[in-house]
Formats: sequence, C-alpha cells, structure tokens
Amino acid sequence: MLGTDLDRIIAAFTAGDRRAASRLISVVENGGAEAEAVLEALYPALNGAPRLGVTGPPGVGKSTLVDALVRGERRAGRRVGVVAVDPTSPFTGGAVLGDRVRMGDLTLDSGVFIRSMATRGRLGGLARATKEVADVLEAFGHDVLVIETVGVGQTEMDIATAADTVVVVLSPESGDAIQAMKAGLMEVADILVVNKADRPGADQLVRTLEADLAMRPAAVWRPPVLATIASQGEGIADLAAAVGRHHQSLQRSGDLATRRLERARGEIMAILRDRLWQRARGQLAADVSAWSERVVAGRATPYAAARALLAAFLESVEDKA
Amino acid sequence: MLGTDLDRIIAAFTAGDRRAASRLISVVENGGAEAEAVLEALYPALNGAPRLGVTGPPGVGKSTLVDALVRGERRAGRRVGVVAVDPTSPFTGGAVLGDRVRMGDLTLDSGVFIRSMATRGRLGGLARATKEVADVLEAFGHDVLVIETVGVGQTEMDIATAADTVVVVLSPESGDAIQAMKAGLMEVADILVVNKADRPGADQLVRTLEADLAMRPAAVWRPPVLATIASQGEGIADLAAAVGRHHQSLQRSGDLATRRLERARGEIMAILRDRLWQRARGQLAADVSAWSERVVAGRATPYAAARALLAAFLESVEDKA
Repeated sequence: MLGTDLDRIIAAFTAGDRRAASRLISVVENGGAEAEAVLEALYPALNGAPRLGVTGPPGVGKSTLVDALVRGERRAGRRVGVVAVDPTSPFTGGAVLGDRVRMGDLTLDSGVFIRSMATRGRLGGLARATKEVADVLEAFGHDVLVIETVGVGQTEMDIATAADTVVVVLSPESGDAIQAMKAGLMEVADILVVNKADRPGADQLVRTLEADLAMRPAAVWRPPVLATIASQGEGIADLAAAVGRHHQSLQRSGDLATRRLERARGEIMAILRDRLWQRARGQLAADVSAWSERVVAGRATPYAAARALLAAFLESVEDKA
Repeated sequence: MLGTDLDRIIAAFTAGDRRAASRLISVVENGGAEAEAVLEALYPALNGAPRLGVTGPPGVGKSTLVDALVRGERRAGRRVGVVAVDPTSPFTGGAVLGDRVRMGDLTLDSGVFIRSMATRGRLGGLARATKEVADVLEAFGHDVLVIETVGVGQTEMDIATAADTVVVVLSPESGDAIQAMKAGLMEVADILVVNKADRPGADQLVRTLEADLAMRPAAVWRPPVLATIASQGEGIADLAAAVGRHHQSLQRSGDLATRRLERARGEIMAILRDRLWQRARGQLAADVSAWSERVVAGRATPYAAARALLAAFLESVEDKA
C-alpha cells in the first residue's frame, strides 16, 4: 500500500532506528494520505502505555518539571516519549528550544525521545496531530508518554485531556491560579502541582487549591495538591508516585477504559466530520456560489440556501446508487 | 408558518415597535427553528445598509468612539443600530453596562437601537448570532449598522470582518499596537484610529502605523491612520468622512459586492456544515460507539473507522431513495 521509501522507513522504525522514528513523526505531522498510511501500519504496535499530560500557564516551570519526571522514569528503567506543544511560540523556538538545549544529556539517552511540535494549521488541527505523534512514539516502544502543553486555550485543553492523567502546574507567581481557574484547567486536573514552592505565597496557593477541591462532590479520585521545586528535583518522587496511584485508580474503577473509549470516539468523530464536509463542499462548490448570489440579492436566507444545498447533496448521493 | 404570537410580534416590528424588535432579537439570539423562521420573515426587509465594524484591544475607548460616531450620524438624520459584543465580560455587564448607562440619552432616541449580545455557546457560534442580530436591526429600518467588538481572538475577528468597513482602534497605551499586529488586526483594518490622541506616545504610534502601511503593496484603498480624542468628540467628523469615503471606494471598485458575496458564502457554508454533521452524527451514533471499541482494542485506526462510517452514512442515504 505504501511507497517503497515509506515501507523501508517503517521497517527501520520497527527495528528501533531513531532517525526513522523522526521521519515518520514528520510524515504524521504533515497529515494527508501518507500520514494515514503510516498510522495504519503502526497501529498494531500500540502497547497502551500510560499517557501523562502536563499543562499550565506560561512560566510555571512545566519543562523543568517534565525534565525531572523523565529522569526519574529513566532511573526506574522505563523508556519515555515526550511531545512538547507550545502554540504560543512563533516557531516552537524560544523557551522550548532553550529547554531542549538544557535537556542536552537526555537527548543523548536512547531511552528518551523528545519531539517539539511545529505543526500548525494542519487540517484536523494541532490536537489531532499531537495525539498521532504520541501514537508513533508509543508504537516505537516507549513505556510512558508525556505530553507537555501551555494551558491557555481550548486547543491546549483538548490536548491535555487526551491524556490518561492530567497534571496541572501552577506557580505562586501573580494570578496563575485565577488564570487557570478561568481557563477551566482546574476541572480537568487529576493532580495539581504548585511548582517553585520555595517562592513566597506557595503555601497560601496550596491551601487555596485544597480549599477549592474540598468543596467538590466526593469522587473515586480526589486530585492531590503537591508542592515541587522542579529545578532542584524536590517533590518529583512524590509526583511520580501520585501519577502511579492515579493510573491504578483509573484501572480499578474502569475509568481508564472509559477515557480511552471517549478519546477514540472524539477522534473518529473529528475525522468523520472533516471527511464528510470535504466531500460535500467539493461537490457543492458551484451550487454554493449560485445560492450566495441569491442571498446577497435578498431572494433567499442563508438558512433556505443551506437547506436546499443539503437536499441537493443527499440527492446526489442517492443518484450514485 | 410561524406561531400566532411570533406573527403578531413581527407585525408589530414591521410597524416600528421597539419592544417587538427587542423580542425578535432575543428569539434570533437563542437560535433554532424559531430564529430561522424570524430571519426568513424579515429577509425581504433588508435594505443593504452599510455595516461598520469597530474593534481593538480592551481599554482603547471603543465604546466612547462608537457613542461619538452614533451622535454624528444622528445629527445627519440617519438611524443607527448598534450591536455590542464583549465576550471577555462574564455577563456582558461590566464596562458595556457602564457604557449603556453613559449612553443614557441615546437610548431614549428612537433613531438609535443599541443591543448588547449576551449569547454564548449557541450552536453556530457568536459570529453568526451577531450577524443575525444585525440583520434584524437592518430590517427594522436602520440606515447604518455598527458592530462593536473586542479584538482579541478569532471569533472577534470573524465578527469584525463581517462588516463592510472595519475600523481598528488603538491607544498609545502599552503594547496595544503590538497586540493588534499579533492578532492580525492590522490586516483586516480599513481604517486605523489612534484614540486618546492627547496621551503621550500618540504621535509616535501614528507614525509607526503609517510606516507599517507604507510597506504594503499598492491597493485600491490605502487605510488611513486617524487620531481621535473620542471623549471630547475630536477627530470624529474626520473618521465619519473616512468611513464614507471607504464605502464609496467599495462601491466603485465592486469590492462591496464581492465582500457581501463572500459573507453570504461563509454563512451558507457554516450552516450547511452544522446541518450535515447533525444529521450524520444522529444517524451514526450507535455505529460510532461500536467503532470506538474496535479502535481502543487496537483492531482499527480512527481513520479506518471514519472511512467505514462515512461509507455507511452515504449508503443509508442511498437506501432511502
């Protein structure tokens, strides 16, 4: 099915070649028929590795925290794939690039694969592309996947909630907690982290978050609030333990299966919607122009036009039968 | 076709009853079949009145500027409809409510109709709802429509670009120009306004904007940069004149027809996409669940699932023929 080149790269990927992995990720990032073919080929290799989403406002130290978490996983002998998404950066440069330089020794470790997402504007969007890059890293045999994203908008929220466990990171700095609450980040958090816990106001922030959580109705899992100083590795072991407990809780309660089913459902629906629309739009282009003129001339409402066009599309499908 | 109540309200609306206008706007804001019926009934009354979009970062004095523009239009004997959109305000209260209080004497003027949009989360979104509320105000017999929106995101941009003439307002305050450029506001501006022109840095900002514009390729219309002090009415007459010139330019070049055709096209497409998806989703719900389970079990990719579901949907349409 695939081009000979792609077949060769997939074979190298399966044999553990990192450069082949990089190339397949690029193919998947670019989307289109080739991306689909690659994902199809890799799907049987998916191992169900836990996915950890790490999100929060800019500047709270997410990358440092992820760095520390990755080192911990490596000490435990687990292979880790990291997807870093920062859509607020003009070319995934800036902070992310700096982080990768800092992570220098990690990038030399064959048990760690770090990928910064550069894709924007791909049909289907960043959330889908990120998930698919994580799929490639999972198929590459990683035991844990970490998806790091700036928690600022709906897209980032979609990315974060595609993980099994969502860690929301705040710092005692100005207004973070309020920003996060406004953005709805608190509602999606499975674990809350107050990083830079040596800064003034950290204890207060921990208490505020705990008070907020205490007001929620009882649930199988109550998100813990943890204090870390990621730059010194403090609190990281506790965080890793909390992630493990959350995963066990998800498995026990059956929520892991539910979350993954919802994730699959969302993905299928998004792809289906795109495809259906692509087809209808292509087929109706000329008719839409004609109806637009009628609408501008005041001879039809956009609703009447849409109704007529929908009927025309469904009829054209019938005619092909 | 409509309920007796709605028929009665439309009759009152046509006779110029302001309370009937308010009620029809609420119906349209809420969306659904009733909204569609109202728009259908009012469509023949659309008069093609010029639409002015006023946008810019928070705090630049947009509402004060709109207030001053409206007073000018009234002095010229024209009836003005205003739609104010501020999605950053939790309940279109805050600043907007304050503005309306300030506009107190204007709201007593039967030649002015001011409506703050409260709708959020309606299927089809805020941009469509705003456009439709403007349609109702146009059908009510207004000679000019002003749509005021905070220029912060894609939605606001969509709202602004649905106007014939887009006025982007900045102030010499910190970082406004950079924010606006980042948000892509400069590209959609037909007229640039530096409000609060008595504040330090205003001249510099005017020069920066002019330099930026000078670098663009020649075009039929070159956006002017105007300085205003809206709170004192200064520069408002020049702004109104520029708006008039822009409208004439649009008419002469044929761009007015093109813009309105594009607007109609966008609207039809958005409604059509929603409808088509509603139909497919409803019909496929059970199948999507079954495919989601296959995807989670690693027996299919989301793409294969979407392909099968698309085929199933198209087949079901055929079967009904």
